[in-house]
This record gives sequence, C-alpha cells and structure tokens, in this order.
Amino acid sequence: MRIYGDKRSGNCYKLQLLLALLGKGCEWIDIDIMKGESRTPEFIEKSANGKIPVLELDDGRILSESNAIMHYLAAGTPLIPTSPFDFAQLLQWQFFEQYSHEPYIAVARYINIYLGMPASRIQEFEAKQAGGYKALEVMEQQLSTSPFLIANTITLADISLFAYTHVAHEGGFDLSAYPAIRNWIGLIKEQKGFVAMQA
Amino acid sequence: MRIYGDKRSGNCYKLQLLLALLGKGCEWIDIDIMKGESRTPEFIEKSANGKIPVLELDDGRILSESNAIMHYLAAGTPLIPTSPFDFAQLLQWQFFEQYSHEPYIAVARYINIYLGMPASRIQEFEAKQAGGYKALEVMEQQLSTSPFLIANTITLADISLFAYTHVAHEGGFDLSAYPAIRNWIGLIKEQKGFVAMQA
Ligand SMILES: N[C@@H](CCC(=O)N[C@@H](CS)C(=O)NCC(=O)O)C(=O)O
Ligand SMILES: N[C@@H](CCC(=O)N[C@@H](CS)C(=O)NCC(=O)O)C(=O)O
Repeated sequence: MRIYGDKRSGNCYKLQLLLALLGKGCEWIDIDIMKGESRTPEFIEKSANGKIPVLELDDGRILSESNAIMHYLAAGTPLIPTSPFDFAQLLQWQFFEQYSHEPYIAVARYINIYLGMPASRIQEFEAKQAGGYKALEVMEQQLSTSPFLIANTITLADISLFAYTHVAHEGGFDLSAYPAIRNWIGLIKEQKGFVAMQA
Repeated sequence: MRIYGDKRSGNCYKLQLLLALLGKGCEWIDIDIMKGESRTPEFIEKSANGKIPVLELDDGRILSESNAIMHYLAAGTPLIPTSPFDFAQLLQWQFFEQYSHEPYIAVARYINIYLGMPASRIQEFEAKQAGGYKALEVMEQQLSTSPFLIANTITLADISLFAYTHVAHEGGFDLSAYPAIRNWIGLIKEQKGFVAMQA
C-alpha cells in the first residue's frame, strides 16, 4: 500500500495525521503539484482526476479523495462512529469541509503560501475571506457545545477539519475571535501519536 | 421525519430520487432560496450553514449535506456496498461530486436557469465550462468500463452524480461526445420507482 502526496498539502496531511494517530505506517511517494507531477500521463493513468492524495493498494487498486481514503484506512476503528446518525454526522462534517471550508480556507492559503500572493490573484484571495469566516462560524458554534465535532471523542471529522483550520492564519484568517476552535486545536495536538504538518 | 428543500435543486432532488427508488415517502417542506428562505434566523437556528437540503428527525435532530443525508436514509440497503473498498469508492465518487463536479456543472446551470444568465455572471459561467467538462471526462472513463460507477449495480454514487449530470445541458454542457454517460443516464431512468426532477 502506498500514498502519493505532498505533506504540506492539508488534503494529504489528513492521511499522514490519521495514520500517526492509528500508529500505522505507509509508504509515501512525494508528488510535487507545482512541477505538474499530478498531471503526467502516468499519474492520470492511475487516477483520472489528477489530484493528490491517491492511495494505491498492493494489488494495484486505486482510491482518490482524501476523505474517502480516510474511511478505508480507519475502517473498524473508534475514529468512525457506528450509530447511523453519528456516522451520517461524520459524513456531514466531511462534505461541509470539501464544499464550504476547503474551497475558501485552503485556496486562500494556496494563493498566499504556494503562489506567494501574486498581484493577479489578490482579488480572488480577498473574495475567499467571507466564505472562510462563515465556515469558521459554523465550526465555532458546534465546538462551543461539544469538545469535538461529534460529541466527546475524536473522529475522522475532526482530522478532516483540523488539516486546514489549524493553518487558517496562512490564508489570512484570524482565529482570535474563535475560542472554541482554538481549544479544539489544542485538544487535537494533545492526542497520542499526533504529528505536526510539514512547514 | 421531514426534508426542507427545493425539488428543482439537484442537491435536494438526490433525496427525492433516493426515496422514490427505495419506495419510501417523507414529508417535504419547500424552501425557496431565491426568497432567502434558507437564510432566515429560524432556518439558521436549525442548520447553521444555511443551505438546503436539511433533514429533521422526529426528535428534532438535524442533518445537512445532501450526500450525508443519503447515507442515513439508505442505511442497510443494497444502494450502499458493504465491502470496505467498494464503500470507500462510493465515498470517493460523492466527494468528487461535491468538489470537482457540482461547483462547475451545478453553478453554471444556476447562473443560466435560476438567474437567467445576467451579463455580470457570463464570465463566471464561461469559466465553469473547463472544470465541468473535466468532471464529465472522469465519469466517461469509468462508465466506459462498467455500467454503473461502481461495477454492475446502482449505488448512492450514481444517484449523487445523476442529479446534475442529467441536466448538464442546462449549464451549457453538450453530452453528445459522452456515449457512456448517456447510456448510464438511460439506465438510471429505467430503475423501478424512478422519478423525474421537477422542471
Ligand atoms: N477533493 C480532493 C481535493 C484534492 C486536491 O485538490 N488536491 C490538490 C493538492 S491539495 C491537487 O492535487 N492539486 C493539483 C491539481 O488539481 O492539479 C481531496 O479531498 O482529495
Ligand atoms: N454541500 C451541500 C450544498 C447545498 C447547496 O449548496 N444548496 C443550495 C441549493 S442547491 C443552497 O442552499 N443555496 C442557498 C445558499 O447557499 O444560500 C449539499 O450537498 O447539500
């Protein structure tokens, strides 16, 4: 089993953090998207959408989409709640992450950190702020009522949302008005096995 | 149990189609997003992200995110594969739908059909075309090798992707170069219980 990814990418870091919390290892093959390594014919042959992370099983089968790969890697562990409602809530937070959080917070961070805030993208960077803050409000509201996104124990939902939330400042987001989110970030960093994201 | 939604919205139609295929009913409360009905204080109190569809259980618990609600409604049915790899593939297609398909195809359709293609959004409409066609390529590639997205039987993945793909022409997308997708659309329309999307 091997993962194709870039440890500075939050979508890939989700898998690295998950495996660390599970105490599992996995072969890791670095892919540099800035050099087009996820768009080569060989990579597209593996995964038609041309995005990282990608998981390759020993028999050659392929999975893409960070949040889907997480379910495969964590199947049967306490990180996935088993009650139908809690399980649906886990998925709710992961779809929220991909639709209402990542496209704002991760993209603003990408423009700032990966691209070095070129003049041509400043307007787009600024346009991402309102949506990003809205996503943070939704998280703050939940985390004011429970320590983790789903009640009292860490699940895949927390790992998925931690990835870009804990580096939201790199996308221009100020977390000082979000005490519940800051407390939750602290709780995740204290989990046994926690590994920091590569700078 | 009740659903808050708009049957012309693909994200809401996913639930309507799913329930029809399962032969189940559900109370439906119409929400008109063009009149701001998903952004009222009462609605935000139910679901902080202010988007439809939303499922409300009889005990008042709330679920949002169309694809997550589908898992709750279809739990234990053959529409959800049980092998860990097939299940992860189902999630892969649903995350692909939310990240690489809906933001292009559904948004282009929204600008055209809901907003009537205002001059101020034509540029955005055009910018959505490349991403939408890329998503269709990824689907075509899979559907050229299997009748449904995951092997030989319909799953939630097909329902999620059918919602906006079968009306992609309303977003300016021409499906004539995608025979496998057109064949798949036909197969889904033949399923027992199938219900068309409200025009
Ligand atoms: N929905 C995907 C998003 C993956 C994604 O956007 N990956 C970025 C790196 S963080 C990428 O591969 N970008 C290169 C490209 O799209 O060409 C997931 O969660 O895995
Ligand atoms: N990721 C959400 C997207 C839902 C969504 O964007 N719904 C639209 C209607 S199709 C909406 O509520 N728009 C109104 C708004 O965002 O204010 C899902 O799959 O349920």
